[in-house]
Amino acid sequence: MTVNRNRQWILSIRPAGQLTGDEFSWNEAPIPEPADGQVLIRILWLSLDPAQRIWMSRDSYKPAIPLDTVMQSFAAGQVLESRHLDFKAGDLVRGDFGWQDYVVADGTTFGGIHKILPSVSPNLALSLFGVNGMTAYFGMKDVGQAKAGETVVVSGAAGATGSIAGQIAKILGCRVIGTAGGKEKCDWVVKEAHFDAAIDYKSEDIGSRLSELCPKGVDVFFDNTGGTVLNEVLARINLRARIALCGSISKGSPTDPGPANYSNLTARRGRMEGFTGLDYPERAPEAFEALGRWHREGKLVQKEDVLLGLENAPRALLRLFTGENFGKQLVKVADATA
Amino acid sequence: MTVNRNRQWILSIRPAGQLTGDEFSWNEAPIPEPADGQVLIRILWLSLDPAQRIWMSRDSYKPAIPLDTVMQSFAAGQVLESRHLDFKAGDLVRGDFGWQDYVVADGTTFGGIHKILPSVSPNLALSLFGVNGMTAYFGMKDVGQAKAGETVVVSGAAGATGSIAGQIAKILGCRVIGTAGGKEKCDWVVKEAHFDAAIDYKSEDIGSRLSELCPKGVDVFFDNTGGTVLNEVLARINLRARIALCGSISKGSPTDPGPANYSNLTARRGRMEGFTGLDYPERAPEAFEALGRWHREGKLVQKEDVLLGLENAPRALLRLFTGENFGKQLVKVADATA
Repeated sequence: MTVNRNRQWILSIRPAGQLTGDEFSWNEAPIPEPADGQVLIRILWLSLDPAQRIWMSRDSYKPAIPLDTVMQSFAAGQVLESRHLDFKAGDLVRGDFGWQDYVVADGTTFGGIHKILPSVSPNLALSLFGVNGMTAYFGMKDVGQAKAGETVVVSGAAGATGSIAGQIAKILGCRVIGTAGGKEKCDWVVKEAHFDAAIDYKSEDIGSRLSELCPKGVDVFFDNTGGTVLNEVLARINLRARIALCGSISKGSPTDPGPANYSNLTARRGRMEGFTGLDYPERAPEAFEALGRWHREGKLVQKEDVLLGLENAPRALLRLFTGENFGKQLVKVADATA
Repeated sequence: MTVNRNRQWILSIRPAGQLTGDEFSWNEAPIPEPADGQVLIRILWLSLDPAQRIWMSRDSYKPAIPLDTVMQSFAAGQVLESRHLDFKAGDLVRGDFGWQDYVVADGTTFGGIHKILPSVSPNLALSLFGVNGMTAYFGMKDVGQAKAGETVVVSGAAGATGSIAGQIAKILGCRVIGTAGGKEKCDWVVKEAHFDAAIDYKSEDIGSRLSELCPKGVDVFFDNTGGTVLNEVLARINLRARIALCGSISKGSPTDPGPANYSNLTARRGRMEGFTGLDYPERAPEAFEALGRWHREGKLVQKEDVLLGLENAPRALLRLFTGENFGKQLVKVADATA
């Protein structure tokens, strides 16, 4: 689709607890022009990530998104015009380009501009070969230190990061249990992503199912959600267990209580550590080499959940928190040109 | 005091939440006789430690104390009779000897039998040169990884472990803030233990005082209490902060909520890790060398809070959880013989 205006979603209101969609307002601006050292990028795909709620709310590993500016978002795009030595028109790139049709960037701001490898499609560059893949890889290998024979639990197992994290643990030789919402997702987690078992948090008792499925206790927990699952896993951790905190989707309000069983960390010398896949930029090639190899060997699958059209970006983001999304949530904005 | 019976406190009831003292019953038994490979020990001092409530309640790093057996406790004693090659009558020793006048032991059970160095008094062998010193040393150096110039917060700063932990952080060149209950303890923390400041959790707003006293945020938290202090510190952690979880005195019931701000661990890549001073037995000489040197140089003080008489052991334990104790809580059972 060709558009001769730059359509944008603006962050107008900071969220209070759960998102409603009313935080955003629509805007149309002129297409920006690149200055020396900049490129003009046509945005093709938006990546929807739980971390965006934090970006909207407060300072974290980057400053809170300023009100009345374009909603920030990882995205894949194509260079239309380059006044930057490293890029040329036609290049496929990824970065923090925002919810809009066009962006000018010089690569020095958060997220940079990364060329997408010719063997990788732009949508997979936002998931398996992007932040989700890096998060799953370093979270399971470095923070979780999962070892063959250990029991690993992954929450949000049908999600973009959780599904990769669990598959990596399987490749490493672990017993892997996932949690997901609903029978369809749980079936996918076991049949397509090859977890050993899945717990449906909507219809099953998480604690008793964890006890059944983890008879030797839990060594590693890769946590995307927080909430009840985190608390029930903490009740069942082994000595020197590792809990890799990737996110807390279920934590709607800052005053929601924390996990009562955190005190088991003391009794069992557990470690609970926060991280992001962005913490290891110099090791991205290592992660992408391993992920690429496992993907080619058919050991890693990535499910995608695509909405069409920039206008659907707020709705796509909300799906992450209602449990509606199934796999990597993307918005397709435009097709690349040949 | 010479007694010709073995007076004992028996654990009769598991605690439900806070201790009442009714968990224990008094017993008098014959003085045991050592078999080959055993020593008979006269107990001189009992160490009262918050972990004892956990030992009474459930399995942890050692099995729960069986009901209707002697209450377990670190203690210092003197060998009266030895049928063990490593010990002779008169030796001063420490170990998990229990709330009683006499014990026979062979050194193979939890806690072992450790000779007390001639330069160390038996009471200090239960605190600075015992579990408290080891816990403070490894908690601050290894788990907390406190470095010069960082801001360190210690809860339970007037307690046996917390006071040593904070003094070690000062020696390492950190800015150190403690929390304690009441003006007398806070004055001691600053004037005698040389913390930079103390917060009285009974009369001050912990959050606003932390903000005032830690303008650069918190890099290391050595936590003895859990509860409000943990939550307020989590709200103020710096990137890659370390939280050394030593205990949760304030956590009365397993269902008390955890810290709502734990999710800051994700945003700021914090690490929260449980540990005990017993985890590093092979490195005890390193810790005791450093602690001994700092003690001789006058950089480390240890305050003691002593009750006289075995009959006061339950009352002494309760003092740990009511905030009445001030410094290392001990019970003096008997004098050593020359």
